[in-house]
Amino acid sequence: MMVVNKTIRLSTRGDCDMIDITAEVADEIRDSNINNGIATIFISGSTAGIPTIEYEDGLIRDFKDMWDRNAPANMPYQHDRRWGDGNGHSHIRASLQGPSLIVPFANKKMTLGTWQQIIVVDFDNRPRTREVILQLLGE
Amino acid sequence: MMVVNKTIRLSTRGDCDMIDITAEVADEIRDSNINNGIATIFISGSTAGIPTIEYEDGLIRDFKDMWDRNAPANMPYQHDRRWGDGNGHSHIRASLQGPSLIVPFANKKMTLGTWQQIIVVDFDNRPRTREVILQLLGE
Amino acid sequence: MMVVNKTIRLSTRGDCDMIDITAEVADEIRDSNINNGIATIFISGSTAGIPTIEYEDGLIRDFKDMWDRNAPANMPYQHDRRWGDGNGHSHIRASLQGPSLIVPFANKKMTLGTWQQIIVVDFDNRPRTREVILQLLGE
Repeated sequence: MMVVNKTIRLSTRGDCDMIDITAEVADEIRDSNINNGIATIFISGSTAGIPTIEYEDGLIRDFKDMWDRNAPANMPYQHDRRWGDGNGHSHIRASLQGPSLIVPFANKKMTLGTWQQIIVVDFDNRPRTREVILQLLGE
Repeated sequence: MMVVNKTIRLSTRGDCDMIDITAEVADEIRDSNINNGIATIFISGSTAGIPTIEYEDGLIRDFKDMWDRNAPANMPYQHDRRWGDGNGHSHIRASLQGPSLIVPFANKKMTLGTWQQIIVVDFDNRPRTREVILQLLGE
Repeated sequence: MMVVNKTIRLSTRGDCDMIDITAEVADEIRDSNINNGIATIFISGSTAGIPTIEYEDGLIRDFKDMWDRNAPANMPYQHDRRWGDGNGHSHIRASLQGPSLIVPFANKKMTLGTWQQIIVVDFDNRPRTREVILQLLGE
């Protein structure tokens, strides 16, 4: 059994910016000594998440629209009253979306569907530099 | 350490159809050589998810009602304007629900509660054949 | 490779009560013989979940408010009509939030951000005693 820890660094524009990291994850699995196991993708920080989506412009817009309806930016948050960051909605979206995604792989191939990409979504209200943890665990 | 990869094939009716696969997962754990570890249940595709729920008719209806309120089918989606599939809401629901579920097991018994079943929910707008990936990892 | 199974027992007040278990998880990792791997935190039962959040009073309130908007307690649920528990909203919230959280650790340190805590949220409509499963898997 082996564990491989990697970090993917990236810059985002915030405001529900979605970045496709599927190729980076696939590359790390290919370059590792692990053939079968799980890839854990984890975002450090409390205003971002790791969904999967069919990565095309229409859905990128629809996903943001869903969040604008269900956890709007333009309403009062207690977090903003206390801390003045203006990103209360970013935290709430991240807590519901979740910081981790697990994707199994077999014979070095992830079990993703053809139109199912691994995404970093940054809910924060400003551009950010992000560290995504990729951990491979298997044999 | 061992990794076991299995596939569970099933047919769904789409439209938030929920199928209980708890028994299939329990059977694969029992039949494997792994006593302690994690079961990763992963759905390939971008219009389905893997929640847990108390699997009874009332909650099956309530769960669908929640989605009809928060990511309705009967509203415009950019995905549908571009691609004409009519399943923009299916993608958005799947991205929020998530494609993977992790359940630990100890001495071959999953740590689920008595009224906590493992579900495949198909958000798509038509019947589908689905492949659910089950990966057991442990010792 | 090693697997360690632990149970964290706690009492909650229900009604979206949020309890920070980050220190307990960190202690178990420190006291184990595993340096690199994943911590799986899993809640048994169908009316609770395991999010991460910046654990401060403002966001604790904002998180509850989000659920009160998107899966309100004060509306009819089929579950309540059939079973009379009055906790239909609790089940629906738990099914969307998810029962498991995966956090990678490297050199015994979890990859959490500074303001990113591991939380047990109890959506039930009454105080509960809860068993949280913590499983460490790695080398």
